[in-house]
Amino acid sequence: MSNERLIYLPLGGAGEIGMNAYVYGYGPAGKERLILVDLGIAFPDMDSTPGVDVILPDIAWLRDNIDRVEAVFVTHAHEDHVGGVGHLYGQMGKPVHCRKFTANIARRKMQEQGHDPGAVVVAEPWPAQVEAGPFTVGFLPISHSIPESSALVIDTPGGRIVHTGDFKIDLVPVLGEPFDADSFREVAKGGVKALVCDSTNVFNTHEGRSESLVGPNIRELVSNAKGMVVATTFASNVARLKSLADAGAAAGRSICLMGRAMRRMTEAAREEGILTEFPQTVSPEDAADIPRESLMLIVTGSQGERRAASAQLSQGKYFGMELKEGDTFLFSSKTIPGNERDVARIMNNLSMLGVDVVTDADGLYHVSGHANRPDLETIHALIDPQFVIPMHGEHRHLREHAKVADGLGRTGVVAPNGTMIDLSGNAPKVVDHVEAGRTYLDGATLVGQFDGVVRDRIRMALNGMVVVSVMVEDDGTVLDDAWVDLRGLPEKGRSGDALSDVMEKDLADRLERVDRKTADDDDALEKLVKRGIQQTAQAEIGKRPEVTVLITRLAAE
Amino acid sequence: MSNERLIYLPLGGAGEIGMNAYVYGYGPAGKERLILVDLGIAFPDMDSTPGVDVILPDIAWLRDNIDRVEAVFVTHAHEDHVGGVGHLYGQMGKPVHCRKFTANIARRKMQEQGHDPGAVVVAEPWPAQVEAGPFTVGFLPISHSIPESSALVIDTPGGRIVHTGDFKIDLVPVLGEPFDADSFREVAKGGVKALVCDSTNVFNTHEGRSESLVGPNIRELVSNAKGMVVATTFASNVARLKSLADAGAAAGRSICLMGRAMRRMTEAAREEGILTEFPQTVSPEDAADIPRESLMLIVTGSQGERRAASAQLSQGKYFGMELKEGDTFLFSSKTIPGNERDVARIMNNLSMLGVDVVTDADGLYHVSGHANRPDLETIHALIDPQFVIPMHGEHRHLREHAKVADGLGRTGVVAPNGTMIDLSGNAPKVVDHVEAGRTYLDGATLVGQFDGVVRDRIRMALNGMVVVSVMVEDDGTVLDDAWVDLRGLPEKGRSGDALSDVMEKDLADRLERVDRKTADDDDALEKLVKRGIQQTAQAEIGKRPEVTVLITRLAAE
Repeated sequence: MSNERLIYLPLGGAGEIGMNAYVYGYGPAGKERLILVDLGIAFPDMDSTPGVDVILPDIAWLRDNIDRVEAVFVTHAHEDHVGGVGHLYGQMGKPVHCRKFTANIARRKMQEQGHDPGAVVVAEPWPAQVEAGPFTVGFLPISHSIPESSALVIDTPGGRIVHTGDFKIDLVPVLGEPFDADSFREVAKGGVKALVCDSTNVFNTHEGRSESLVGPNIRELVSNAKGMVVATTFASNVARLKSLADAGAAAGRSICLMGRAMRRMTEAAREEGILTEFPQTVSPEDAADIPRESLMLIVTGSQGERRAASAQLSQGKYFGMELKEGDTFLFSSKTIPGNERDVARIMNNLSMLGVDVVTDADGLYHVSGHANRPDLETIHALIDPQFVIPMHGEHRHLREHAKVADGLGRTGVVAPNGTMIDLSGNAPKVVDHVEAGRTYLDGATLVGQFDGVVRDRIRMALNGMVVVSVMVEDDGTVLDDAWVDLRGLPEKGRSGDALSDVMEKDLADRLERVDRKTADDDDALEKLVKRGIQQTAQAEIGKRPEVTVLITRLAAE
Repeated sequence: MSNERLIYLPLGGAGEIGMNAYVYGYGPAGKERLILVDLGIAFPDMDSTPGVDVILPDIAWLRDNIDRVEAVFVTHAHEDHVGGVGHLYGQMGKPVHCRKFTANIARRKMQEQGHDPGAVVVAEPWPAQVEAGPFTVGFLPISHSIPESSALVIDTPGGRIVHTGDFKIDLVPVLGEPFDADSFREVAKGGVKALVCDSTNVFNTHEGRSESLVGPNIRELVSNAKGMVVATTFASNVARLKSLADAGAAAGRSICLMGRAMRRMTEAAREEGILTEFPQTVSPEDAADIPRESLMLIVTGSQGERRAASAQLSQGKYFGMELKEGDTFLFSSKTIPGNERDVARIMNNLSMLGVDVVTDADGLYHVSGHANRPDLETIHALIDPQFVIPMHGEHRHLREHAKVADGLGRTGVVAPNGTMIDLSGNAPKVVDHVEAGRTYLDGATLVGQFDGVVRDRIRMALNGMVVVSVMVEDDGTVLDDAWVDLRGLPEKGRSGDALSDVMEKDLADRLERVDRKTADDDDALEKLVKRGIQQTAQAEIGKRPEVTVLITRLAAE
């Protein structure tokens, strides 16, 4: 027994808000049997990941130890927890356990990637448990902003771990299971080794607010609205969709859901018996025929996504509908940091149409799905664990959350992605550091974070691109009519002549003087051409563009 | 007289927060004499303007009417008001009037661009006035977050205009001129045609807070700090620099200013006699020798700028100094929307070093330089103009601000960039729409917003790039050993073979079958090659890259 240990290893989610992936292991050192909790994605941005479709955790370490992996457990159906299940099943090939609503979504992800949806196994909620090697895992219902979120109660011979998943303390969540303090007290009774805990809102010092506070405000807003009402929120917040739809119905409006994610989420919720009392909806096609004062659209795109319904509606006709003066557009959402510009673009477009934009600026129309600091302190107290391991946060969130734990007399552990912690003893111990980067889904292929593919794209975007074609005769003569093509660069520089002409002329001068040794050496010739182009560019336009040199060697006839 | 009119035409700043440029004109229609108020820049971002250095208003209309332009007036020395003065002087060539601190900064901008700093003319504050054609312009001191900000009192035969510039109502601004309601009342006495008014904070419904509230909080924070203290703020907020430095000095710490903008602003303020009581500072070189608990750094980079002092300090050693556990880093600033990710990166780096990061989350360490809604209402009341024309805002800010004016019984006028308004009558009248886009300073050249240069860069960043070289013999035979070079694309696709090999092979198959007509036609051949490459890419990697085709036609020997 002394040889066995209990380890924790985040591969994603501990260092960012996104792409959650947490490994637990139990067994002899280096031979622990493993489970993975959550397998999510993160979203790309133009600054660091242009052209990338989806960001996934790098699970190379799991792949290398795949024979030791028992199963995957998914806490809830948000993309940053379940989004990677389909993309990475090919590398994992292990059963995916989750509750029925999450399973419904997970199965769709498997199917989209051509995998067997049968690998998704439905788990009943606590006190039911799933066996996986030395682990016994229970799904303990916990309130959040999507149905059937669960904390995981992970039992091992080395002790019990409570992994909260995402959560808030909501006693009146509108839809689904209220936070049940008794169940957490019960789970904590025998002693808990570690609480692995959501850190998203640790910097918010106010008490959390219930989902039930939002409905009445929305209802009042909608009942006073004159023209068409459009509301956008996170499609996965099914409780919010219900509050919005109920407010519309109460005001005598027909409800129309727009956007793929919106339809998919409500479909899944209906299929799993979660959304039983939802007003009748009309299709977008039928909505166009309904008078605007009798219509309410509930649409995707609260984060400013360019192809989502909100963006489309802000730009003009969409499905035959067109917003105009007197209409109301409600953002029943917060803007996730980084999306401010995209959201503002939509608001400004709506402003130009004369639409009244209502936001959550005064805290009336949205509540967060995550526990604020006072609620984190509550769950620390309820579980009273030996260690508190903050997760689901950037480094600053993890560090702050560990400080909160320390302040309450427990041991806070900052363990960023790749840090393997041995939890067996009386003090947590870092026992290994594992590569834990990011993998990019780019079109149909997976690209490593450090493969240089994205770096090259960023360079082209910043510096522009010059393509040069140079021909060399078999006697070593470099033909001096090099051909230059520009992309993403101004046509003319300081001299006022076409930049490509100036480059071609400068290059011709250089090529005339090339010695035979350089001419015969592809690398040397390329270097010379590149340097020449960049010097001309620096002089003409004050930039150093990227350069691709094509050297063609002409064979003798 | 009936033939003369008074016009307003924003070319920048009315549709964004940035690149302010407002034209006023007086005279016979189409022959008005013109003045320009402010000539600022905006900052690029990776989403929409990768590689661009500075964004300037497109002043083509002014250039076309340059003989009618009398002068430029600059309200204050923020980059979005004065930053374009040097870059565009070559197109303007008109005197630039401003108060002495602003002039100090403006002269530096002229010199940097190789223009005569003598074109900058120092104006005395109100009641002094500057004559410019039919205009008489006075600089009326108004409180903001930089020294010597001024509202402009613009008198014309068609009436008086009050152009606020950026402002807040601060009765205790720490440094410089308090808001003086009497002077505004005085100016308003004879009746004001139009109040052209800052809209930045129109959505903030709280009363504005004075700069003087910040000092005591900073002082307390610094006096309790243990290790090194670093504070960052906007370099131009000289009052804040003073509050920060005073707090450091009071705690017995040596003060060191770091970052070019920080030194430039304090130098200008000293030169103009504004910064008389500032603690002694030490150079960064000397600071390295001072014990950390006796040192306070005041540094640039509050917006996460990658090369500024804050970013450098967050990454390790900088000027021999290295932050560590127990140090304090204060953001005495707010994060401008769009900069969240860059600022968070620095905070996370600092967190990894163990540095305690203090932000303005609780409103203790920063106040805005702009008037909130109640203060906007106050200035409306003080000036009591016929028209209120909101400026300095995105469309949603302008519209909201106009609504505020309407609500108070005045006429609010939404006039976005390019809208020429005739203010002569009893109702404002749109009389023209003028092209008012953006010009990009890109390295050393000016590039138009719609030139396609930046669009091409974005496409390369999103889609990656393929360069193909194809050779055609003089008998029309297309050589089938086309050469393919990839940039920003994965090396391998679905087949597992090198993507460039697969492309070359697919292309060889296509080129073998090319007919003479296509082979002879550059455009047709290019199109065929491009389509081929994109089809292969779609099949192999699920992307459609940008393609550059180089066709070389071999001459007969």
